[in-house]
Amino acid sequence: MRMALGVSYNGQAYQGWQSQSSGQTVQDRLEAALSRLATQPVHTLCAGRTDAGVHGLMQVVHFDAPVQRSTASWVRGSNAFLPPDIAVQWAHAVPDAFHARACATARRYAYVLLQSPVRPSVEAGRVGWVFDALDGDAMRAAAAQLLGEHDFSSFRAAACQALSPVKTLRRLDISQQLMGAGRTGMGIPVCYWRFEFEANAFLHHMIRNLMGCLVAVGRGTQPAHWVSEVLQARSRKVAAPTFAADGLYFLGPVYDPVWGLPERTPAFDWLP
Amino acid sequence: MRMALGVSYNGQAYQGWQSQSSGQTVQDRLEAALSRLATQPVHTLCAGRTDAGVHGLMQVVHFDAPVQRSTASWVRGSNAFLPPDIAVQWAHAVPDAFHARACATARRYAYVLLQSPVRPSVEAGRVGWVFDALDGDAMRAAAAQLLGEHDFSSFRAAACQALSPVKTLRRLDISQQLMGAGRTGMGIPVCYWRFEFEANAFLHHMIRNLMGCLVAVGRGTQPAHWVSEVLQARSRKVAAPTFAADGLYFLGPVYDPVWGLPERTPAFDWLP
Repeated sequence: MRMALGVSYNGQAYQGWQSQSSGQTVQDRLEAALSRLATQPVHTLCAGRTDAGVHGLMQVVHFDAPVQRSTASWVRGSNAFLPPDIAVQWAHAVPDAFHARACATARRYAYVLLQSPVRPSVEAGRVGWVFDALDGDAMRAAAAQLLGEHDFSSFRAAACQALSPVKTLRRLDISQQLMGAGRTGMGIPVCYWRFEFEANAFLHHMIRNLMGCLVAVGRGTQPAHWVSEVLQARSRKVAAPTFAADGLYFLGPVYDPVWGLPERTPAFDWLP
Repeated sequence: MRMALGVSYNGQAYQGWQSQSSGQTVQDRLEAALSRLATQPVHTLCAGRTDAGVHGLMQVVHFDAPVQRSTASWVRGSNAFLPPDIAVQWAHAVPDAFHARACATARRYAYVLLQSPVRPSVEAGRVGWVFDALDGDAMRAAAAQLLGEHDFSSFRAAACQALSPVKTLRRLDISQQLMGAGRTGMGIPVCYWRFEFEANAFLHHMIRNLMGCLVAVGRGTQPAHWVSEVLQARSRKVAAPTFAADGLYFLGPVYDPVWGLPERTPAFDWLP
């Protein structure tokens, strides 16, 4: 029987999603837990591989269960064998036609960015950081130029394995939550910026590369229309450096409702 | 010159605030950083010692600076020598009459509690957890009985060094943030509960012991009026077990505005 699982994790301690010989990845830990529960090897396939340090709020995987277990057992049993920073949120039996990657019609990510004269502490490893005041209007003007179907080669890591650099960015929303403006007496208002991305698919490092360019515009290092020039250049060399993984959250894939899978993760609204 | 600092930290990696021979405490790390910056030993005194695993959003300390530094240098210099999960948020020169503990007229704490059939993962170590649906009205009825001046001996740890068990609880607010009710299909709505406490001072383990009793009422294990009985018994034996440290945040002390210190921490609104 094919099963789908929703999995959430704090990526700080892991070398990304995908299994490696080191065993220090989220997939390695998940498959070890499922294999113990099933008492035989279980292999999973995910909706979207995340990099080292990137967090997952609702990664979705599928696997062909070698044994019969109730959905509650797949959840509770796996969680008993998983480390505290990874948890299976739900399990659903799915038709054999379901494929966690191929059936995903879109992926959603959020990037959380602390703007503060002081680096993160309580939230270290879970937010990006800028110590300049960013210009939200300029960043939104830049974001508008990225929407739609484009060749995103300028934002693509060299190691990217995608078949095509052409992706459709459906949404890029930028919001700001002020935290007591001017409080520090050190020059800039303290706030969290939240960037929400939705695309049919993303290239390797695409969001972190987009973040580097959006922040360059937000800081005034580049004008908003520069992002169009970067896009048109189709060359990684013209874009800004890759931004830190720390503030990046995979919110989850989007599936046709016909599969009957949960659409949201509990922690979705909780992010700053 | 006497200096006051606002300090935030993630308590997960530390054996609490207070200096120990192990050196694995927040105070040890802070004093090591300040001593490096001052090139001679610096000793600090804090507004409220936190237990192992408890987080601080705006701990306040004072110390007598053995050297002259600008306020910006105390912040940036200390942060350069502090680990990523501790940061000085601000520094202010204060009169010699200022004392971080003695001048605090109140302390504020928050406890964040995940209600979910599945344990925390992304937020492991930073929220408490219950897998039963709690009754908010019952907990609020219990909380109302705790407000005001009482002998809180029933909620006091054996190791408590406070001179008196009589404290005044000025505020105990309970709010709930729903996260997609019934989403998991495993019985209970997923939400974060937030408990906010303000008192002139707290006894050792007082909030974690209050949390144990409030959760017992929320679960229906005890009726709301039981909390009054526990209070009147003045005995630790009758109260519920001490709740986990994970979800406890020291929001900070309250001072007379005459001292001119910041009243809030940037991360205050960001907690779930």
